[in-house]
Amino acid sequence: MIESLKNHILRFVSPSKKEMEDFLNIIESENIPAKHYILKEGHYCNYNHFIVKGCFRSFFINEKGVEKTINFGIEDWWLTDFDSFMNRTQTQLNIQATEDATVLKISKPNLDMVLKSSLEINKYFRIILERVRIADQRRIQYMFNLSGEELYNTFYEYNPEFVQRIPQYMLASYLGFTPEFLSKIRAKKHS
Amino acid sequence: MIESLKNHILRFVSPSKKEMEDFLNIIESENIPAKHYILKEGHYCNYNHFIVKGCFRSFFINEKGVEKTINFGIEDWWLTDFDSFMNRTQTQLNIQATEDATVLKISKPNLDMVLKSSLEINKYFRIILERVRIADQRRIQYMFNLSGEELYNTFYEYNPEFVQRIPQYMLASYLGFTPEFLSKIRAKKHS
Repeated sequence: MIESLKNHILRFVSPSKKEMEDFLNIIESENIPAKHYILKEGHYCNYNHFIVKGCFRSFFINEKGVEKTINFGIEDWWLTDFDSFMNRTQTQLNIQATEDATVLKISKPNLDMVLKSSLEINKYFRIILERVRIADQRRIQYMFNLSGEELYNTFYEYNPEFVQRIPQYMLASYLGFTPEFLSKIRAKKHS
Repeated sequence: MIESLKNHILRFVSPSKKEMEDFLNIIESENIPAKHYILKEGHYCNYNHFIVKGCFRSFFINEKGVEKTINFGIEDWWLTDFDSFMNRTQTQLNIQATEDATVLKISKPNLDMVLKSSLEINKYFRIILERVRIADQRRIQYMFNLSGEELYNTFYEYNPEFVQRIPQYMLASYLGFTPEFLSKIRAKKHS
């Protein structure tokens, strides 16, 4: 199971055998059944999670009690609430498995310990964050500019695997639609 | 001028004298008059910019020819189009000085050279990107959930200095309003 994280690291950087071992030694694993949570609103986010298997969504609940899905994560993604994880603030987010899932996770003190001295693990997380930044910027640009139909088509183009895996009402929430509006767009696209 | 970058680095990490010198040696400086551009749509983004003085905005122009401001930057911020800078893609963004400005800038090959071996400079950019990630997530959450008036109030609370410095039509564009709507909200808040 740890192999998937090891392989992911080796896609981006080249740690020494010792650097890799020191990092992998502080990783814990956990199985998360579908619908279970790895983070709940009001709690502290104690871990950064690497998804080995399964799919997760992050959402918050707005003042009207409506769930707003703001992120998804699947295999080979890191998932956390960075604000809560880094700054020890209470999270406003919920992170829930949408399928039976397996994660590898690392606590903040353990991660800090490795990042204190490992050049390659610092590089690895810097590179991951650069990729996240690009995705976030693209997302903000799309939210500003695309119509509902264009948003769906763009999401489908970049993430065809998600569209198959996640319940439609979650995807609708992520795109800012009602489920009914999403059904209409899908019917039009796939007819 | 280079002192402001040096001080910023020392706020987050502790490079050796040599690491700091090697990094600062590859930094170039440039004065940018108000309204001039450091990046234009269709070009390649060759630099990451550290703002010593002044204010910038990033915007794209949508299909209807309307400018959409998606980011601002002021003193002590790094500013680039990460997608274009990292992946050598043509940018869709424009980055323009809204005041007379001074930047320090670093090219991709020079930055890569330093990041290859410097632990502390890797840490520095990792930490900067963590902070950017937190801001981007907050922004996405707000765009999903806040009314126009709440968006303005939240922006004002987190960035009071911006509201004074940037032309109102740019702020309106950033918040997704018409300038008229922004005027109404401001009049209400500040009356």
